[in-house]
Parts: sequence; C-alpha cells; structure tokens
Amino acid sequence: MNKIEHIGIAVKDLEASNDLFKNLFGVEHYKIEEVASEGVRTSFFKSGPNKIELLEATNPNSAIAKFLEKKGEGIHHVAFATEDLEKEMKRLEGEGFVILPGFPKEGADNKRVAFLHPKGTNGVLVELCQDITDS
Amino acid sequence: MNKIEHIGIAVKDLEASNDLFKNLFGVEHYKIEEVASEGVRTSFFKSGPNKIELLEATNPNSAIAKFLEKKGEGIHHVAFATEDLEKEMKRLEGEGFVILPGFPKEGADNKRVAFLHPKGTNGVLVELCQDITDS
Repeated sequence: MNKIEHIGIAVKDLEASNDLFKNLFGVEHYKIEEVASEGVRTSFFKSGPNKIELLEATNPNSAIAKFLEKKGEGIHHVAFATEDLEKEMKRLEGEGFVILPGFPKEGADNKRVAFLHPKGTNGVLVELCQDITDS
Repeated sequence: MNKIEHIGIAVKDLEASNDLFKNLFGVEHYKIEEVASEGVRTSFFKSGPNKIELLEATNPNSAIAKFLEKKGEGIHHVAFATEDLEKEMKRLEGEGFVILPGFPKEGADNKRVAFLHPKGTNGVLVELCQDITDS
C-alpha cells in the first residue's frame, strides 16, 4: 500500500454533492461513472496525488443505500493503492485480516479492487485497489 | 487544498490499534502525541504522501469520546493540506461553508488546523491543515 488512492463518500444526491465538492475543492469532478454491479453512480475529484469518490445509490439493496439508511451521508471507505493486489491480499490474509467475499473484482475508475472486513480494522472499511493497466 | 494530508480514525485502545495498523500497513507508527487541549492521544502512520492518524480519547468529554460513544470506532475526519490556512478559510466561508468555532488552532503533528461544520459537507468532518513551519 503506497498511498491513499481515494476516500469514498456516500451521498444522497450526486448532482447536489458535485456542486458542493466543486465549491470545497475549487475544481470540477473529472468523471461520472455508474457501476451497475454495485448499484452505485460515482463521481471523482482530484486532490493532488489523491482522489475523492462520491457514491450515490442507484439500487435500494446496494451497500451504499444501506449505509445511507443506517448512518446517513459521510465517509464510507478509504482505498489504498497497491502495485500487486493478489500479493497484498495474501499478505493481509496471513496477518489475519479477512477479505470480503466476491473480491477482487472490477471497480470504478479502471481499478481492480478488494475490501477488508471492517470488523478486523477498527470499523474502517478498507479498500485495496490496483490500476487495471498495471496488471 | 493540494492533497489528503491524513485521515483520522477514532479508536478505543491506541496500543491495540497501533499493532493492528502496523500489520495492515507493514510499517510501525512514527510518532505518538498527546493533544491535551483536545483530550486525545494520537499516533501517526505514513502511507506514501499521506498519513493515518489514530485518535484515542483521554477525556470522556472530548469530541473523540463522544464520537466513539455515538458511532463506535471508524473514520472520524479527513484532513486536506493547505499552503495558506487563513486564505483557504476565507475562500470557503465565501462559498458558504461554516468554520467550527475556536479554530484555527494548533493541532497534532506540527500543524495549524481548522474544521468545517459537517452539516455543510455531506456529513464529512473536513479538516484544513498547514505545517507550522510554512507560516
């Protein structure tokens, strides 16, 4: 893990939040992308070497819809960049961390991703991600 | 705001979490620092250009103690690096964001910091920080 790749923020209304975060960062989002398999529509902002991902639910059964219902808007996960996702997953499993089932798989913004179970990480939903072009 | 300076994670037991995050990142924390005025003890890990700050309450009336009581362990805030804190605060107030009262003031890890009211930022507690040596 060589940097925070992005933080993911659950929002109710992507358009309204795009305006809000544009005012916060002083720059526009650089892309909007729907990830149908996850039931989310995402937008991305750059902050130097890092990104901010806004996540809006498109499906009431999605993880983001459930998060919004339970906790309201706010930071949903933090993603760390890895150069070798499988190797990092193996190392972390060796340390006793639990990878959520169904991962790795393709995520937004041209990444392969995996998540660690937050029960093993002080309640923090940790994503590992690798650029698909790096594979 | 030119990068994510750090994310802050509220934890119940700083020593146990230092071990956990050492296993997660594969590196030790590089400092422990108590901020008596905020009622917290913090530790810091590096992740490339970014940091992770763990926060343990030392005072039952501190913001971190209240966060832990209400929400449990997890991501508490995200901090963005600024080169000119006052200028950035002024810009953000001009955009309608609300700076929490009592800021800017000195925070952990040699920074001057200010926080935005999370009601105006989709529930995200946003910190702005500037290296004291930059002032």
